[in-house]
Amino acid sequence: MSAAALAAFVAAAQRTGNASSLHSAGRTARRTVEEARETLAKALGARPSEVIFTSGGTEADNLAIKGIFWGRRAQDTRRCRVLVSGVEHHAVLDPAFWLAGHAGAEIVLLPVDGEGRLDLDALRAELAAHADETALISVMWANNEVGTLQPVRDVVRAARPYGIPVHTDAVQAVGQTEVDFAESGVDAMTVSGHKLGGPVGVGALLAKRDLALDAVLHGGGQERGVRSGTLDAASISAFGVAAHHAVGCMPERAARLAALRDDLVARVRAAAPTAVLRGPEPTPHPADERGTPGDSSAGPQGSVDRLPGNAHFTFPGAEGDSLLYLLDSAGVQASTGSACQAGVPQPSHVLLAMGVPETEARGALRFSLGATSTEADVDRLVAALPQVVARAQAAGLVSGRGQGGMS
Amino acid sequence: MSAAALAAFVAAAQRTGNASSLHSAGRTARRTVEEARETLAKALGARPSEVIFTSGGTEADNLAIKGIFWGRRAQDTRRCRVLVSGVEHHAVLDPAFWLAGHAGAEIVLLPVDGEGRLDLDALRAELAAHADETALISVMWANNEVGTLQPVRDVVRAARPYGIPVHTDAVQAVGQTEVDFAESGVDAMTVSGHKLGGPVGVGALLAKRDLALDAVLHGGGQERGVRSGTLDAASISAFGVAAHHAVGCMPERAARLAALRDDLVARVRAAAPTAVLRGPEPTPHPADERGTPGDSSAGPQGSVDRLPGNAHFTFPGAEGDSLLYLLDSAGVQASTGSACQAGVPQPSHVLLAMGVPETEARGALRFSLGATSTEADVDRLVAALPQVVARAQAAGLVSGRGQGGMS
Repeated sequence: MSAAALAAFVAAAQRTGNASSLHSAGRTARRTVEEARETLAKALGARPSEVIFTSGGTEADNLAIKGIFWGRRAQDTRRCRVLVSGVEHHAVLDPAFWLAGHAGAEIVLLPVDGEGRLDLDALRAELAAHADETALISVMWANNEVGTLQPVRDVVRAARPYGIPVHTDAVQAVGQTEVDFAESGVDAMTVSGHKLGGPVGVGALLAKRDLALDAVLHGGGQERGVRSGTLDAASISAFGVAAHHAVGCMPERAARLAALRDDLVARVRAAAPTAVLRGPEPTPHPADERGTPGDSSAGPQGSVDRLPGNAHFTFPGAEGDSLLYLLDSAGVQASTGSACQAGVPQPSHVLLAMGVPETEARGALRFSLGATSTEADVDRLVAALPQVVARAQAAGLVSGRGQGGMS
Repeated sequence: MSAAALAAFVAAAQRTGNASSLHSAGRTARRTVEEARETLAKALGARPSEVIFTSGGTEADNLAIKGIFWGRRAQDTRRCRVLVSGVEHHAVLDPAFWLAGHAGAEIVLLPVDGEGRLDLDALRAELAAHADETALISVMWANNEVGTLQPVRDVVRAARPYGIPVHTDAVQAVGQTEVDFAESGVDAMTVSGHKLGGPVGVGALLAKRDLALDAVLHGGGQERGVRSGTLDAASISAFGVAAHHAVGCMPERAARLAALRDDLVARVRAAAPTAVLRGPEPTPHPADERGTPGDSSAGPQGSVDRLPGNAHFTFPGAEGDSLLYLLDSAGVQASTGSACQAGVPQPSHVLLAMGVPETEARGALRFSLGATSTEADVDRLVAALPQVVARAQAAGLVSGRGQGGMS
């Protein structure tokens, strides 16, 4: 949490007043909330009336998936298909599968290529065959594990002729790459406070005003009846400050992180030659010719297909958890995949969707670079890595686990 | 937000680390969360493993009503009846009515008496006729508008022979009166951070481990899979500190507030003789003989049937909003009912359920006393009240509104 965001939180938390109360303290809290709403909207290319504050990215994703599904079903009961990419965060996938079990939804997992990028042709074919039965499409802006940027504008282009709403989880993308709600054309977008220097426990769904959207949390009727619960004026205020700062600093920060990340990738490959980078190459090859160019216009950070602060590898013959603990002892904090799935003894669904074999997927390690990351951090990683990988591979050989034992 | 709670928030917010991450920063955040879980559980007579952290009371109520409904329906599809008192908060009523519209629930609104207290005979008759079809019962611990304490233990006694789970919304009660999860016998209980000096945006559902409970927010699988979303370690830490303090200080604070409230009630009646107190008399008459004694064992605060910090009146011929704005100008901040419903031009469903005629219900005003309330606040109210009531009644006569025009 950035110092400026924390200061905004503390200032608002010391005032009493419920933003829904009509007395003067309530109106002061309401003003704090509405100013933050304007700040956030401006930072993200949205209108203030399109901002629905939530308790975070997970709630915003649940609201998008369930809320749009129920809203669309209320208009036309045939619309039961929910189209999601196979590499979505669990906060999108799990609500979708819950709807399948409880509300008659049919889930269509859209395929991705070997770098985790959506197969647009598969989406177009699905829409051509089943547009009338489709409730919504959800494709994330950037993947939280392998950092792949998705062709969100192309998804919108494919969906628009059929009038099918598109949601995107942009939790990982805001502050890392250019994100503009209106310009993207999506109908709904998830953002989160703590991913951009704001507090945990606050987020937002940006939603076009004409989107049919049912509530997930019912009660007092706050946020135009779509999200009930006492407005958290202090966290919302801090969220606004953090978003303004993160978006304003994005070009400079992304360039710095991309350079640091390119260096990390090159040095990891040198230190551990068997390591396999997952997701797109950080710096695209000039002769790179893909079937689906998507959003591949060059951005300020040089690398166009991958988040600047993300590097993801698999290390053959090693377990990700072993690598993580050994690196942690050496002062380097990494993740095997999504923190939300930490400790779950299953290979990442993202890697499996990309076609990575299960045995290889078990050796996954993600390095995330942020505002405080420096070249010294990369030095420490690279110094520790050869021995860490050797020890993790030896442990993998001894235990015999993770080498296809469960496949 | 109390100073101690804010200090705990700031300390935790300055540390990085996702409580679900396996590296050392993650484990530190996890320790912060688990210590707060133990503190909260101890303050409320629960086990740490019974605490499910949420984004607040509204989310906890939604989780209880929808989660238990779906959990019970999965065991037996006949269980579609949802029993709720007619004076519940909208965070309980609205999820229940949503289930009726979307998931085949049948809502049974349990009646209350003229003081807002549950009609236990009606509950027993309902259970005798329909126990096999009943998914759950939800009866709040204390009403948020008129302050009436409910006979929650009697509800549990009535439900237990049938094995029907009981939920109670104790948001208003914790820190105001004795609340003990295990001793109450309920299966699930909602608590909120900001009602007891903690931050907004955090709360908890206490739930017995054997309770069938489906998730409302799906995703990363935090909180034993029942509530997904990155754990808000800073707010949770502050919530624990605030709950410990609020519960520890409760007897002394409740006695002080009850005395102040009794004084307020007596002086409001003297200053505005037409005012009608709603809810139970603060100090029970010695000869008071009710058909349903409920929880009427004398507590430390003297008054047994009403929250110590609550006083609620209707003022005949005046609009609550007019009273509120006129008092606000005089430096007194009151509410017409629930802040969540502020600005909604409808009389309170709580007063209507109590049998208050619609014309009278329009003149409602609730005074809440808290940690910082003093005799000087009561002096200011009583000094302003006669003129405020006279002006609001005159405005009511001129506009002709609120006098049955909509009934």
